[in-house]
Amino acid sequence: MYELKFAWIVVLLSILIIPLLSCAEESKEIKLPSPKMKGGRPLMEVLKDRRSIRSFSNKELSAQELSNLLWAAFGINRPEEGKRTAPSAMNKQEIDIYGAKKDGLYLYEAKKNVLIKILDEDIRGATGGQDFVKEAPVNLVYVADYSRMGDSSPESKDFYSAAGTGFISQNVYLYCASEGLGTVVRGWVDRDKLRKVMKLKENQKIILAQTVGYPSE
Amino acid sequence: MYELKFAWIVVLLSILIIPLLSCAEESKEIKLPSPKMKGGRPLMEVLKDRRSIRSFSNKELSAQELSNLLWAAFGINRPEEGKRTAPSAMNKQEIDIYGAKKDGLYLYEAKKNVLIKILDEDIRGATGGQDFVKEAPVNLVYVADYSRMGDSSPESKDFYSAAGTGFISQNVYLYCASEGLGTVVRGWVDRDKLRKVMKLKENQKIILAQTVGYPSE
Repeated sequence: MYELKFAWIVVLLSILIIPLLSCAEESKEIKLPSPKMKGGRPLMEVLKDRRSIRSFSNKELSAQELSNLLWAAFGINRPEEGKRTAPSAMNKQEIDIYGAKKDGLYLYEAKKNVLIKILDEDIRGATGGQDFVKEAPVNLVYVADYSRMGDSSPESKDFYSAAGTGFISQNVYLYCASEGLGTVVRGWVDRDKLRKVMKLKENQKIILAQTVGYPSE
Repeated sequence: MYELKFAWIVVLLSILIIPLLSCAEESKEIKLPSPKMKGGRPLMEVLKDRRSIRSFSNKELSAQELSNLLWAAFGINRPEEGKRTAPSAMNKQEIDIYGAKKDGLYLYEAKKNVLIKILDEDIRGATGGQDFVKEAPVNLVYVADYSRMGDSSPESKDFYSAAGTGFISQNVYLYCASEGLGTVVRGWVDRDKLRKVMKLKENQKIILAQTVGYPSE
C-alpha cells in the first residue's frame, strides 16, 4: 500500500517536473536563423574599407545579422568535417565566442547554430575599459578553453590562443566592413574581473574582446 | 703636392665607387605593380571556401598576384593615415612580412609597395618542417619587431605579436580562397635556425610562417 502510494507520487512528480526541466533547457538555447553563405561585398573592397571605429549607435543587430556575424567569425564552413571559417592549431578549435548584449550573456555554439544563454544580466560594461562598450549592442569576448589544447606548454597555449583569436577577429572586421557595421578589437579588458562576472571555469582564459554595432552619426 | 694627389685619388674613387653603390641599392628594391583594391569574390562565399591545403604546384605567382596578396595581408588601405588592412595594438604595426621564394628572400615594404631583396639564396626549406615548403612558390614568414612595441612587458609583446599575426594570416587565407590559391599557416618552424638563416636582428622574433601557391593537381 505504502509502495503503491510512493509510486503514484513519483509518477505525478515526473509529469509535473519533467516538462518544467525541459522547458528551462529549451529557453537557454536560442536557435539562430541559418547564416547566409552567399553574397557580401567583393573581398578587395572589403579589405580597402577595413578599419576600427570607436563610436556606436545603440541600434540592435537583427537575429539574422548576429547569425551571419558569428558564422563569419568562426562558424562551420565544412559541415562534413566540422571545420571552420578560421584555422586553429592542430584543429583544436579552442576559442569560444561569447556575446554580451543588453539582455544577457550568450555563448555561440557553432555546430548547432544556437546561442546558449549564460547570464540574464547586462555585463557589457565589464567587457572593457572604454565608455562605448556599455552602450554598443554587441561585445564579443573571445575565450580559450585550455583543456582542449592537449598537453602542450602553457606558453604554447598562450601563443596559439592569441593567434587563433586574431584569425577570428579579422573575420569579424571583414564581415563588418562588408555590411556597413562598425567594430574594434580590444585588449583593454580587466580579465580577472570579467572572468568572475562571466563565471568562467579554471581552464578558460579570456583572450580579447571586440565590440560590434552600427556606427553612430 | 701630396694633398693634391690625395684629392685626385678621392675624386677618382668616388667616380668609380658611388655608381656601384647606388646600383647595388637599386637592385635591392623591386617595385611591385599597384595592388588591385577592387573585385575579388563576395566575402561570404570566400569564408565558405576558406581552408588549409598542404599540397602545392611549383607554378610561380605573378608580380601582380604577389602585390595583391601582400596588400591584402597587411597593405596600406588608408594612405593618408598610413593605416593598414589588419589591426595592430596601439597601431604599432610591429609585424613585417618576409617572403621566401626560389630566387631569394624578400621583405615587403608596404608604404613604398616594394620588395626589398634580403638574400639571394633559396631558403624555403628552412621556413618549416613539412616537405611541401621546399617546393611551394612562396613561404611568408611573419616577424615581429619588438623594438616598435614600446616598453610593454615581454609577455605583452608575445601576446600582441601572436594576435597581430593572426589578423594578417587570415587576410592571406581569404585572398587565397578568393583567387583559387592554396595556403596553410604553419607553427612548425625551427625559429632559432631560421632566424640565423634570415640574419634577423636581436629585437626581431619569428611568429608564424604561411605557404602560398597554386594547389597541386
